[in-house]
Amino acid sequence: MPVKPEVLKVTPTARSRLFQVEELKLRFSNGVERTYERLASRGNGAVMIVAVDAQEHVILIREYAGGIEDYTLTLPKGLIDPGETPHIAADRELKEEAGFGANRLHTLKKMTAAPNYMGHRITVIIARDLYPCKLEGDEPEPMEVIRWPLARLDELVLQDEFTEGRAIAALYMTRHFLAVEGQ
Amino acid sequence: MPVKPEVLKVTPTARSRLFQVEELKLRFSNGVERTYERLASRGNGAVMIVAVDAQEHVILIREYAGGIEDYTLTLPKGLIDPGETPHIAADRELKEEAGFGANRLHTLKKMTAAPNYMGHRITVIIARDLYPCKLEGDEPEPMEVIRWPLARLDELVLQDEFTEGRAIAALYMTRHFLAVEGQ
Repeated sequence: MPVKPEVLKVTPTARSRLFQVEELKLRFSNGVERTYERLASRGNGAVMIVAVDAQEHVILIREYAGGIEDYTLTLPKGLIDPGETPHIAADRELKEEAGFGANRLHTLKKMTAAPNYMGHRITVIIARDLYPCKLEGDEPEPMEVIRWPLARLDELVLQDEFTEGRAIAALYMTRHFLAVEGQ
Repeated sequence: MPVKPEVLKVTPTARSRLFQVEELKLRFSNGVERTYERLASRGNGAVMIVAVDAQEHVILIREYAGGIEDYTLTLPKGLIDPGETPHIAADRELKEEAGFGANRLHTLKKMTAAPNYMGHRITVIIARDLYPCKLEGDEPEPMEVIRWPLARLDELVLQDEFTEGRAIAALYMTRHFLAVEGQ
């Protein structure tokens, strides 16, 4: 592995309710200096849930995404609240967003979204042994819940409405995990 | 499809060199109002390149990522410059970051990174018929270039150093695309 650059200085440069922008001044091991901007990572991270039912259908939600000003088909996900483990957060988010609890949770992978300028990490958790259970969340409107057969994943990822890289990755990894487990 | 919420107001709330934060005031079709924060999308978008050589190895790069303050293994990617098509940008980035040009380019998918609070989109492009060609980019140090057999993708995604959701998604989609094409 290469020698990490030395962090010379971290300077906050802008702040809003949710976001904090920082300047990161670095000196690489070859002596070259660079100043990058990044979003500071706050909070306890987030979870993305691949809920798989007994028929190997996955639970998708259709929700409004403010960044793209459109509805999008994706996986349930959300921030880990203070004091929660990733598994507890996954179970809660699944109840709030999709109306299911899960008796069996498995951590699959910790992913990044855009590591060059964001520290955010999301833990992908497979949820099984599902049962109906609805918790009220802070959603402005009920999310549409869709069951999609994992066997038809290649069709899903071609849809224009299904675009979130982390969700595509999580589903492919889940399909592989279940195939190996079933061997 | 649900009826989109009405955008009541978009207000810039913070700005740095790279980032602009906006408040998005919405009224959902059920009358509920919400104010979200998001990063405004600027520029012409970005490309992520899956370069596949004649032996079906993909080209990975190891680069320093400021957001996570560590080296990470990922796919070549970069912003589309003004006047460039996505294919021209993909060919240029591949030359700058990995030292290869490509005679054959195919657009696979337009992905989002975090659509709830970012408008950013990245176009995944498969690059084939590779030839050695190095262009100087603005990288602070040369990137390490690694060839990885696509047949061993499931091993790669388990590595702690390979975390970027969009790159995992792009590689799985490429493997499927090449398998279908080869049938």
